[in-house]
Amino acid sequence: MTTYFDHLETRNPADREANLMARLPAQLSHAVANAPAVAHQLQGINAAAVNTRAQLATIPVMRKSSLLELQLANRANDPFGGFAACQFGAQVKRPIHRIFASPGPIYEPEGESNDYARSARGLFAAGLRAGDLVHNSFSYHMTPGAWILDAGAAALGCAVFPAGVGQTEQQVAAMLDLKPVAYVGTPSFLRILLEKADELGTPVTSLKKAMVSGEALPPSVRASFEARGIAAMQCYATADVGLIAYETAVAGVVQLGMMVDENILLEIVRPGTNEPVPVGEVGEVVVTTFNLDYPLVRFGTGDLSAFIAEPSACGRTGQRIRGWLGRADQTAKVKGMFVHPSQVAQVLAKHPEIKRARLVLTNPDQRDAMQLRCEVAGELDVTAVTQSLRDISKLGGEVLAVALGSLPNDGKVIDDQRVYQ
Amino acid sequence: MTTYFDHLETRNPADREANLMARLPAQLSHAVANAPAVAHQLQGINAAAVNTRAQLATIPVMRKSSLLELQLANRANDPFGGFAACQFGAQVKRPIHRIFASPGPIYEPEGESNDYARSARGLFAAGLRAGDLVHNSFSYHMTPGAWILDAGAAALGCAVFPAGVGQTEQQVAAMLDLKPVAYVGTPSFLRILLEKADELGTPVTSLKKAMVSGEALPPSVRASFEARGIAAMQCYATADVGLIAYETAVAGVVQLGMMVDENILLEIVRPGTNEPVPVGEVGEVVVTTFNLDYPLVRFGTGDLSAFIAEPSACGRTGQRIRGWLGRADQTAKVKGMFVHPSQVAQVLAKHPEIKRARLVLTNPDQRDAMQLRCEVAGELDVTAVTQSLRDISKLGGEVLAVALGSLPNDGKVIDDQRVYQ
Repeated sequence: MTTYFDHLETRNPADREANLMARLPAQLSHAVANAPAVAHQLQGINAAAVNTRAQLATIPVMRKSSLLELQLANRANDPFGGFAACQFGAQVKRPIHRIFASPGPIYEPEGESNDYARSARGLFAAGLRAGDLVHNSFSYHMTPGAWILDAGAAALGCAVFPAGVGQTEQQVAAMLDLKPVAYVGTPSFLRILLEKADELGTPVTSLKKAMVSGEALPPSVRASFEARGIAAMQCYATADVGLIAYETAVAGVVQLGMMVDENILLEIVRPGTNEPVPVGEVGEVVVTTFNLDYPLVRFGTGDLSAFIAEPSACGRTGQRIRGWLGRADQTAKVKGMFVHPSQVAQVLAKHPEIKRARLVLTNPDQRDAMQLRCEVAGELDVTAVTQSLRDISKLGGEVLAVALGSLPNDGKVIDDQRVYQ
Repeated sequence: MTTYFDHLETRNPADREANLMARLPAQLSHAVANAPAVAHQLQGINAAAVNTRAQLATIPVMRKSSLLELQLANRANDPFGGFAACQFGAQVKRPIHRIFASPGPIYEPEGESNDYARSARGLFAAGLRAGDLVHNSFSYHMTPGAWILDAGAAALGCAVFPAGVGQTEQQVAAMLDLKPVAYVGTPSFLRILLEKADELGTPVTSLKKAMVSGEALPPSVRASFEARGIAAMQCYATADVGLIAYETAVAGVVQLGMMVDENILLEIVRPGTNEPVPVGEVGEVVVTTFNLDYPLVRFGTGDLSAFIAEPSACGRTGQRIRGWLGRADQTAKVKGMFVHPSQVAQVLAKHPEIKRARLVLTNPDQRDAMQLRCEVAGELDVTAVTQSLRDISKLGGEVLAVALGSLPNDGKVIDDQRVYQ
């Protein structure tokens, strides 16, 4: 029988949605009041009145690239560029507990709440329980990966060995001595540890469960863990928002896709735009958090995924998404000029008869060429659209009408097919 | 004016001593009841009746080398060899929170208490305060160094950037972006970071305080930090017992030696024996902790130091010790046989007229030779002592009577002067 982390996971979906919507006004008001960059993002919007997905969709998506730009622009005064609602200093309301740098020049604050990145729910679904010893092979240095899962393991009541990265032989020795039942880290490093132990003639046999993340888990690698008696499950988390979604299983059978965490609001948005796509369509994962210390609103992760309509057989009633389907940031350089997905969105905004579009880049004879393929129900004014494309992109391109539903469902707004020889 | 971490630091010394003695019976009883290896160590001793230093001295010192042996012997059942009073498993009374490996095959448990290693007091004396941003350049991987100071910084209300080791340029970049006021880590790595920043043309100017540890802080290096406006203070901590002692200052002037932490019981013991030495004499640092999760009793750190009789001008009334004066483990191999400081102690036990002794090892013509120099008030029965030395060490050696107080006060029981060419 499947056990659940809490009753939230098996709620009536309508209750979950109503709860998320009910929490939005207070969270957005808090963000606007305490995080200047979010206040700027929500300019002209009454945060306290946002309590539907439609209203939420009126808020511009804050993409990771923009967050970085804003951090860099305001760095002298505030390393977080106005996105944090927690502060440095004594006797502040929300003290900063730790700071992480991930990637490179982007900084994220960790506040003082337990399991600040909500990973305990995902670890529970992966089978971890109070009293388990967890070998954590993510890095604790600078980046938050290890800390996100360390905090969740602590919240579950697990003991953690903070192994970190590298030092393969010492990690194997510690595994043999301490006999951890669980591993967290990348799947490739787990494989390296297991194979090193085999090579030394002292196989690691204590591991029964693993929460892997940070890279793809190919089915063959999952099967190789399974053959050793290790049930490996994946989660999807980012440095900015923490746990986003996690795999679930029924009687050892891993279910399709991932379950969205109960305490975030996830949207799938057409890349380069602010508009949610229909269920099933691939788009960018956009997250609104309920984190009081780092209250990101409509944060564009840059990752592509899609909602799965069917409920999970695991009994959890939450929204499901497909795994990671690529990067949404499809900005390309054409004839030396940048072309952004948002420019394609601008063309569509001028021509509402276009339902979806895809800018295909090719380079026959090593010369860049663009073709804008437009799904339309009826007629397309090719001349007008060609002119709009030129006005907006400053580049010439061909415009082609295609049948409704004929473009691939892969989240690509700019499809770069150029080949360099 | 000097400020203090709490009122404990300025207590009447007699009150401090009375308080430590009053806490001993409960702590030792707890250790005996919950840590089988400590129960074995205290065999035949009524733990609940130990409330003087003299009674404490009847308990055999548990040296780090013995702790390792016991851990190795019991590893199959318990990685901590019976020394931990916290447990794995769900619904246990004292759950293990984290496990560290330091050095190599020795494991230490961290329980759930805040600032488990008591470093906040030392960080406070180094000038750290709530709201300070601390750049932590100790490693969080496997070993507890970074965690000991991370926990203390959190207890003080500081924010921490977990920088870890290596990645020098990224650490410099983070320092320039985040502008930490405090550094914790080794002094040599601080120097590397500062010089790298200079070299890049972007000197780090935000740092004002540093808590350095893990290696010696030469006066020239301290002065170079001082010249940059960074007040660097040292602490002495070990993986097993956490903070042992810390430097204090008066109006920026660092005081001699180090102040012993308020919540440990520290003895200086003649190497190889269980006997405390008089104040001022160099010997091994032996610590009894009041940690409920890892209740080490008379733990021999293997480090040499000595009590300082005079009180500190900083106003703290605690016991003071000189800094690290070398290693107490003077086991040597002579003509292929191990000679231990405890064997020298056995010779002395058979001949109470010897007040102190020192076994000097030399190798004239590349052949090992031993000379036992004995401080005696009156006559020495050289023949009898020579026989005792042979009986106990299985090795022949010369015995020499020397004047009382003529042997150097450096904690050396075995002085290995051999030169290999």
